Amino acid sequence: MANIYFDHNATTALDNRVLEAMLPWMTNQAGNPTSRHVFGRSARDAVEHARAQVAEACGAYTSQVVFTSCGTEANNFAVKGIAAIKSAATARQILTSAIEHPCVTRPAIAMQQHGYVSQKIVVDANGKVDLEKFKLQLKTPTGLVSVMLANNETGVIQELGTIADMARSAGAFMHTDAVQALGKIDLSFADLNVNAMTISSHKIHGPQGAAALVVDKKLDIQPLLHGGGQEKGLRSGTENVAAIVGFGAACELAMSNRANFATHTAALRNQLEQGLQALDVSIFGKQVARIPNTSFFAIDNIEGETLVMALDRKGYAVASGSACSSDSTEPSHVLLAMDIPADVARGAVRVSFGASNTAAQVANFLATLNNEIMRLKQLTAIAA
Amino acid sequence: MANIYFDHNATTALDNRVLEAMLPWMTNQAGNPTSRHVFGRSARDAVEHARAQVAEACGAYTSQVVFTSCGTEANNFAVKGIAAIKSAATARQILTSAIEHPCVTRPAIAMQQHGYVSQKIVVDANGKVDLEKFKLQLKTPTGLVSVMLANNETGVIQELGTIADMARSAGAFMHTDAVQALGKIDLSFADLNVNAMTISSHKIHGPQGAAALVVDKKLDIQPLLHGGGQEKGLRSGTENVAAIVGFGAACELAMSNRANFATHTAALRNQLEQGLQALDVSIFGKQVARIPNTSFFAIDNIEGETLVMALDRKGYAVASGSACSSDSTEPSHVLLAMDIPADVARGAVRVSFGASNTAAQVANFLATLNNEIMRLKQLTAIAA
Ligand SMILES: Cc1ncc(COP(=O)(O)O)c(C=O)c1O
Ligand SMILES: Cc1ncc(COP(=O)(O)O)c(C=O)c1O
Repeated sequence: MANIYFDHNATTALDNRVLEAMLPWMTNQAGNPTSRHVFGRSARDAVEHARAQVAEACGAYTSQVVFTSCGTEANNFAVKGIAAIKSAATARQILTSAIEHPCVTRPAIAMQQHGYVSQKIVVDANGKVDLEKFKLQLKTPTGLVSVMLANNETGVIQELGTIADMARSAGAFMHTDAVQALGKIDLSFADLNVNAMTISSHKIHGPQGAAALVVDKKLDIQPLLHGGGQEKGLRSGTENVAAIVGFGAACELAMSNRANFATHTAALRNQLEQGLQALDVSIFGKQVARIPNTSFFAIDNIEGETLVMALDRKGYAVASGSACSSDSTEPSHVLLAMDIPADVARGAVRVSFGASNTAAQVANFLATLNNEIMRLKQLTAIAA
Repeated sequence: MANIYFDHNATTALDNRVLEAMLPWMTNQAGNPTSRHVFGRSARDAVEHARAQVAEACGAYTSQVVFTSCGTEANNFAVKGIAAIKSAATARQILTSAIEHPCVTRPAIAMQQHGYVSQKIVVDANGKVDLEKFKLQLKTPTGLVSVMLANNETGVIQELGTIADMARSAGAFMHTDAVQALGKIDLSFADLNVNAMTISSHKIHGPQGAAALVVDKKLDIQPLLHGGGQEKGLRSGTENVAAIVGFGAACELAMSNRANFATHTAALRNQLEQGLQALDVSIFGKQVARIPNTSFFAIDNIEGETLVMALDRKGYAVASGSACSSDSTEPSHVLLAMDIPADVARGAVRVSFGASNTAAQVANFLATLNNEIMRLKQLTAIAA
C-alpha cells in the first residue's frame, strides 16, 4: 500500500527539477560565496541568480530579498528586527493576529522582556481579522503589526491591503507571513503595501534550508544573526548555496504552475468537501476566501488526533492541526480564536493538497474516511 | 586548467557518500518531522539518527545536540542565549577573545544595547590567549566567556581546558566555537568542560544548512528562534532533514578519517612551509600547536589580496583572510590582535588543505607562487 500525502501545508516533496538545479552545488567543488576566488565567485553568482527568481515570484525587487534558513527564522527576524527600530521601540505595542503561526506570536511575546507589550488581534468566526476591533487597538501607539496573508490551518486569506493601510496610517510598521500564500495565490510585495514579508522554500517543493524575508529597503530593520556581514549585513552566516539555488528554481516553477495549481487543487477540495457533506461535519473558514488547496474540518464526536492516526494506518497522511508545531494535545489556537468550542476544535483534521494529488485519491480517501468514522463510532459506542 | 582548491577552512565540497545519505530525503516524499503520520515519523527518526552521529563525533550525549542552520546561528544562539541567563545577565561582562570569528564578537557587541559590557581577551604574538591578562579580566564579574578552540585563519589551538576552568571558577559560563576543530583534531565536549560548543557541517564535507550548538543540559540557555518548539523548544523551525542527515553522515566519516586527515594534511603543510622558507616569509602561529591543515603566511612587500587574485588566475583557490566574512579590505583582525604590523598583516594569505589535495599540487603551487611573487615584485619595481 503506497501512502498518499495530503499534508502539503506542513512540507512538500522536493521537485525533481529543483533537485537537478541543486545537484551541481552538491557534486562539484563549491565555494563559499564570500571567497574571492573562482569557486567563491560562481557561488555568489548562483545566489544572486536565485535572488532574482525569488523576487520575481513575489513581486519584489531583487534588492529586497534577504535569505534566511527557514520561515521561522524570517518571522523571528521580522518581529524582533522591526520592533527594535527606534520608532517601533518607542511605541512599544506589538500587535499580532490571534491566528498567527507560533513563530510570529512567540517572538512577540519574547519581546515583552525588553519592555514591549504584545497584544492579539481578534478574528471573527470565519478566521478573518475583526477590522473594527483592530482599529480600536491601533489607538494605542503601535510599533509593529504582523498579520499573516493565508492561514496554515484553515487556509483563510486576510484582506491584507486594508490591514496594512490601517496599520501604516496609524504609524506602525507592517509585516506579513506569506509562507502559505506563495505559489498558491498571486503574491505581490509591492501591492500588499507591507514593510516586510516572509516566504519559505519547503512549502513550494523547494528544499528545506532556505526562506526569505522580503524587506522594504527604507526599513531600518535590525539583524537577528550578527557576524560576517552577509546579506548586506542583515543576515550573517555562510549562504546555503544549494538550498538557495533550489528555492530560486522552486519559485520559478511555482510561478509558472500557479494557475494550474489553483484549478487542480480547488477541484480536489470541492470534491472532498462535497463528500464530507454526507457526514456530521463542520468545515472551518468555508464562507470566506481561502487558498485553494486547504480544507480544515471536524467530524462530530470524533477526536482529530485519533482520526489522523487511523487514516495514517490506512495510508493517508493528513494533519490534525498545525503540523509545523511540536507535539501538542491542545486544541488548535486558530479554531479557539474563531470561537469554535474546544470539543469541536479537538476534532479538527486538515487536508492540504498538492499538484500531484488526484481525484481518484480523494474518492478513495472519502471511502476510507467513512469506514474509519463508522469504526471509531462503534468503538466509542461499545466503550460507553 | 583545473582549479585546485586550497580553501577548506572557508567551505568544503560535499562528500559523495554524504550526498548518497541525503538523496532519499530529496527524491522521495519526505515529511515534516513534527507530523504524526508515517512520513513525519520517518523524518523524525532520520533526524534522531543524525543527532547520535553528531554527538558521537564530538564526545557529547545525544540529548546535548541542538541543531541550527549554520555555525553563525549557533554562535549567536550561544552568546545571546547564555548572556540572557539570569546570573550572566547580572554579571554583565561578556569576554570574547580578540581573535574570534565575527559571529561571536558581533553578537557580544550587540548585547551592549541591553546593558552588557563586551570586552576582548588579549592574545600573545602566537595568537594564544594571554592567561595572565585573562585572569585579571575575570576579576570583574563575568557572565560569559567565549574562546574558540581553533582559529580559522592561523589554525592556532587554544588551551581550552585551562581557559574553561578559569572561566567557570570565576562563575562565568563558558562557550567555545569549535567549528574549525571538528574533524581536524580530537574533540570531546565532555573533556573540554565548557557549557556550550559550536560545530558546523559544511567545514567537514557535509552540506551547508546544518550546524549544532552542543549544550550542557543544566544550562538554562534562552532560545534565539521562537516558534513551534522544535529541538525541545531551544530552536524552533522545521528541521532541515536532508542537511541534518548529511551532517550526521559527514560526522561519521570525519571520525573515521580523522587520523589520516591529520597525517596527510600535516605533511602537505610541512611541504608548503618548507618551500616558503626560500622566500621572505612570515608564517603566523608556527611556534604553537595548530590544526594540521592550515598555513597562514605573508610574503614581504606583497599584498595578500593581490596575490590571491593572481593565484586564482593561475588556478589556485586560496584565501587572503577570513573567507567567512563579507568583503573587507581591512587587515585581518586576528593578526592585528597578535600585534603583527598592519603592513605585514595586509600580506596575509591562507592555505587550508583537504583530504583530496596532493603533494604534486603543493609542489606546483610553490612553483606558481614563486613566479607570481617575482612578477608582482617586478611590477612594483617598474611602478616605483
Ligand atoms: C504560516 C506559516 N508560517 C511560518 C511557518 C514556518 O516556516 P518554516 O517551517 O520554514 O520554519 C509555517 C510552517 O512551518 C507556516 O505554515
Ligand atoms: C571559526 C568559525 N566560526 C564560525 C564560522 C561560521 O560558520 P557558518 O559558516 O556555518 O555560519 C566559521 C566559518 O564560516 C568559522 O571559521
